[in-house]
This record gives sequence, C-alpha cells and structure tokens, in this order.
Amino acid sequence: MSIADLGCSSGPNALLVVSDAIDAVELVCKELNQKPLPEIHVMLNDLPKNDFNGLIGSFEDFKKNHTCFISVAPGSFYGRLFPSQTLHFVHSSMCLHWLSQVPVELQNGTKLGLNKGNIYISKTSPPFVLEALTKQFERDFSQFLKCRAEEVIHNGCMVFTLVARKGEDPSAEGIYLQWELLAQVLMDMASQGIVEMEKIDSFNLPFYTPTLEEVKNVIRREGSFAIKSIQMFDVGWGEARDQACEHDDKVEENETTSQRMAKSIRACSESLFVSHFGVELMDELFARYSYLMEGYFSKYPDGALTNICASVQRINVM
Amino acid sequence: MSIADLGCSSGPNALLVVSDAIDAVELVCKELNQKPLPEIHVMLNDLPKNDFNGLIGSFEDFKKNHTCFISVAPGSFYGRLFPSQTLHFVHSSMCLHWLSQVPVELQNGTKLGLNKGNIYISKTSPPFVLEALTKQFERDFSQFLKCRAEEVIHNGCMVFTLVARKGEDPSAEGIYLQWELLAQVLMDMASQGIVEMEKIDSFNLPFYTPTLEEVKNVIRREGSFAIKSIQMFDVGWGEARDQACEHDDKVEENETTSQRMAKSIRACSESLFVSHFGVELMDELFARYSYLMEGYFSKYPDGALTNICASVQRINVM
Repeated sequence: MSIADLGCSSGPNALLVVSDAIDAVELVCKELNQKPLPEIHVMLNDLPKNDFNGLIGSFEDFKKNHTCFISVAPGSFYGRLFPSQTLHFVHSSMCLHWLSQVPVELQNGTKLGLNKGNIYISKTSPPFVLEALTKQFERDFSQFLKCRAEEVIHNGCMVFTLVARKGEDPSAEGIYLQWELLAQVLMDMASQGIVEMEKIDSFNLPFYTPTLEEVKNVIRREGSFAIKSIQMFDVGWGEARDQACEHDDKVEENETTSQRMAKSIRACSESLFVSHFGVELMDELFARYSYLMEGYFSKYPDGALTNICASVQRINVM
Repeated sequence: MSIADLGCSSGPNALLVVSDAIDAVELVCKELNQKPLPEIHVMLNDLPKNDFNGLIGSFEDFKKNHTCFISVAPGSFYGRLFPSQTLHFVHSSMCLHWLSQVPVELQNGTKLGLNKGNIYISKTSPPFVLEALTKQFERDFSQFLKCRAEEVIHNGCMVFTLVARKGEDPSAEGIYLQWELLAQVLMDMASQGIVEMEKIDSFNLPFYTPTLEEVKNVIRREGSFAIKSIQMFDVGWGEARDQACEHDDKVEENETTSQRMAKSIRACSESLFVSHFGVELMDELFARYSYLMEGYFSKYPDGALTNICASVQRINVM
C-alpha cells in the first residue's frame, strides 16, 4: 500500500499525517482481523530545495513506532513524480494555494508595474491581476489532478487542504490580510530608502486562494476524480498557530500568538522574498511585520483563515 | 521497471551507474522495437547521514537527459528498504566490504586491546580478529541477500562490486596496506602525545575483504540468488583513482596520484575516524597519511586493489 504526502516540508510536523494514515490502516486491519498487515510504503515529496537531510534524520525515530518503508521523491507536484498507477492514497496539506509560478502576465515585462505597490491581489489591484492569478490556479490545479490521475490506482483516494476564500473578492478576507501587511512593511521600507520601489512593483506572490466553486469546477472539468466530500472551514488565527506550534519544540514559551503567526508566515514565504529582495533584508522585513501583526491581531483577535478540505476518488481508469 | 542503487553516496559519481542502466534499457527496447519505453523508477539508497540535499540537487540536471522517476530511500542495506517484490534490478558498487558494525567481540569490553596498535587485521593481530571479522561479514552479507531476496522480483537481477582479497591472509595485500599506513600514522601521533594509545587500541574498522570463495559460499548457503557470473579483477591504484576523479571537478590539476588516493580513502573512511578520534584531528591525520602514501606509492607504483564483481539472479520465489 503506497501513501504519498505531497509538499511534506521538513521539521516535526512533516510526518504527522503519515503517522495518522498508518495508524488508521492498522486499526481497520485489526477490526477486519486481517493479518498480516499490508506493507506500507510512504513517499514524501517536496520541492528539491526542501531540507531533506533534516527530514531524513527524523526517519529513524519514526520507524521505531511505525512499521513502514519511507522514501523521498523530490520535485514539483505540478509534474509527474511517481510511476503510473502505483499510489493508493495521496495527501497534500496546505500547499495547493502555492502556484507553480507567478503568471507570465505579471512577471517582469511589458505590463510591469500594473500591480503597483502590491505583492498580491489588493483593493488597488486592477482586475487584470485577479484574472491572471485565477487562470494560473486553474491551469496548475488541473495539471496537478492530471498528474495524480496517472499515478493513483483505480478507486484510489486523495485528500487535500488548501487556503481558500469565501467571497468573490480575494482582497476582502483571510490570508490576504497577511500579505497586505507584508506589502505595507515593504512600502514603509521603500519610503525610507531601504527597498527600491521598482522591486516591490515587480514582485508578486505565486499564491491564490480559490473559492469552493472554483475548486469543484476544476475537479469536475478535469474529470479523473469524483468528489466524495468537500467543505470549507475556518481556523481561528490563534488556533491554527497553536496547533502548528504544538509539535514545534523551537517555540519560545513567552511568544505571543501574533509573533508565532509572523514566524509561520515567514517560514512559508521567506524563500520567495529572499530570491527577489535579498537575504540581508529578511530580518528587518519580518521584524517589522511581526510588530505590525501584533497591533493587527489585538484589533481583530477573531480573524480566521478559510480552508477547503476535499476528499476525492480516482474514477474512469482505462 | 524499478532500479535500486544501494550505497549511492553523493557527488558527481552518484548517478553514473543509474545513467548507464537507463541507457541500456532504452537501447534494448530500441533494438526490440518496443514502444513505449517502460517507465523507469530509480531508487537511490545510502545511510541516513549521507548528503541527500546535495544528491537531490543534481536530479534536475540528470532528468534533462534521462526519462525516469527518482526517489531516495535512506537506511542501512543490511535491513529492508523496499516493499516486497518491487525491484527489477539492484546495483551496489564498492559498499559491501563495509560491515554493519565492528564485531561485538572487538568492541570496547573484556577483550579490549586484543588488536593492540592496529585498526584492521594486521600481521600482529591475533587470529581472533580475522575470525571475528570473517563471521561478521558472513552474517552481514547473508542478511543483505535475505533482505534483497524479499524485495527483488522472480528472475530479477543484482550486480555488485566490492573490495576483496586473493589469498587467505588479509594482511598481505590490497587495501589492507592503506589501513596499515593509517594505523602507522596514528601510532606516530600517539608517540608524540597527539592521540591516546588507548584510543587506537579500542578502534577497529568495520571493514572486511572476503575471498572469492567466501562470497560464493555465502550466496550459495543463503540460497535466494543464483550466480550468473562472478569474477575477480585488479584495478591499479593509479587507474582506480584516475577513473574516480574523471568525474570530480574538484580535483586539482597538479595533484599526484597518491594525493588523490589519500583523498579518496579520507572520503570513504573519515566519518568513522571522526566519531572515535574527534574532528579536530582529521586534517593532521590525513595530511600525514597523504605524505606517507607518497613515499609508499613511489616504491610500489604497480600496487592494485582486488575487487569482486558478481551478477546474480533471484530464484525460487514462492
């Protein structure tokens, strides 16, 4: 039985879902009195720049409590990763809102500066920006499904979560606010001459929060997977971070929720900022961000991230 | 089609054999006019402390010229690494002479110091040392075959090379001389108070060079694989290093063959010396070794490493 976790990252959370999946298989086998237990082959995927040495270092401890084979398959999940029809269960947590690239239309070129002063869709972004990101998401997510359709066996299942939005306007809710705050910090730094304004104008996050309908439509149009369940749910900002940090022994005890949130946003986005703005600005950028976040969080303690969780099943295998 | 390379290491040589294997499959398919080409899944294995980040960093370039899926399966090949009956071809180059551990009898304990002043089998080692290492090799190699027997499909093939010896006395030939020189350097350092003598007495390399008969006997006794071919061959010291270095762009142009050999021995054994003697001694140890090697090499320029290369096939699968 092959289980793949796509976008596993590294660190103490990387093997959490896999651990649950193995436990679930063992429980079901016990209930059905099925012996011997199936051999479970866990495949962990992330981009080649992930810290695989750190991840692999944690396998030995993991294997003490879980009977399985573990291997690592580096690469982009917007391309093929595994041989045809070899996977029984695929999981991806909080990754599919990251696009394969910034849409070509928003990259340096003729239309440079169209999303002036922003790094994501903002209230001041022209409609063109939303349109480009929407199309890129549809292409990427459809490509993701197409690749998995080749790899997953007939009736095989896939469960994924991603950050989403409730309404039509992405600049009105959820994680958008966190990018807005980061853009604000960058603009402040530009006004003080620390960052060039052109650098901000030419930077856009390869990020998109789809609506429930958009996700459903892409799955239906692509056609390889049937939706077994799909739902939206909110995770309170504090709650999300508390959960994420439960398993992170590097969390300092006196850290506030907003500081932890700032850390978490830094962890998932820093590499993108580094390659555009330079590593030397990162401490300053995220220190200011953490400070701003503090004020913001005390004003809106009930803010929440909207997520989509979907469970789909491979159908129509030739 | 699944190909595993066990003990792949990292660096420019890591994907050489896999590259040849893929080319061979494609050539045969072309000759047989078989289309489409089979999907090839390459699995690379080494110990968890290997530099997998470096290895994974080279995949992107490799995939430009080779159509395949690549994953990484960290762990000791003296244990199970892959699900049952999933491998078509297994390769292991220059690894099986490394034992899973120093035999318990030679580890710190009651018989401590029995191999005084040596780090491997030497002319002054009591017979007990050879006996302990021989038994450990037989256990380890048999265990290796047993694990692969589970993983390789019926009629699947395995090709491996390892360092070997021609005669009964391991302290008379081949790579033994290189460990003898290293022991000599350590003894010199001990006489100058740089290393404690007790440290040397309690250190033994988990290394063994079997004879052709020993390898054949273990394969036959274990019984899962039939020997298709097995042969011994010598590789001249200079020649071996020249080949190994052809693909290493870090080689300095004016380096002598003996300096390169010293580097190569350092690359494959340093981690063992580090954990026993401490990292701070390594530069001194290997600088002295390189110097001694120079003298040695000019005296015996025709020295050679004896290797065994075997090709075996999985039989009797239930």
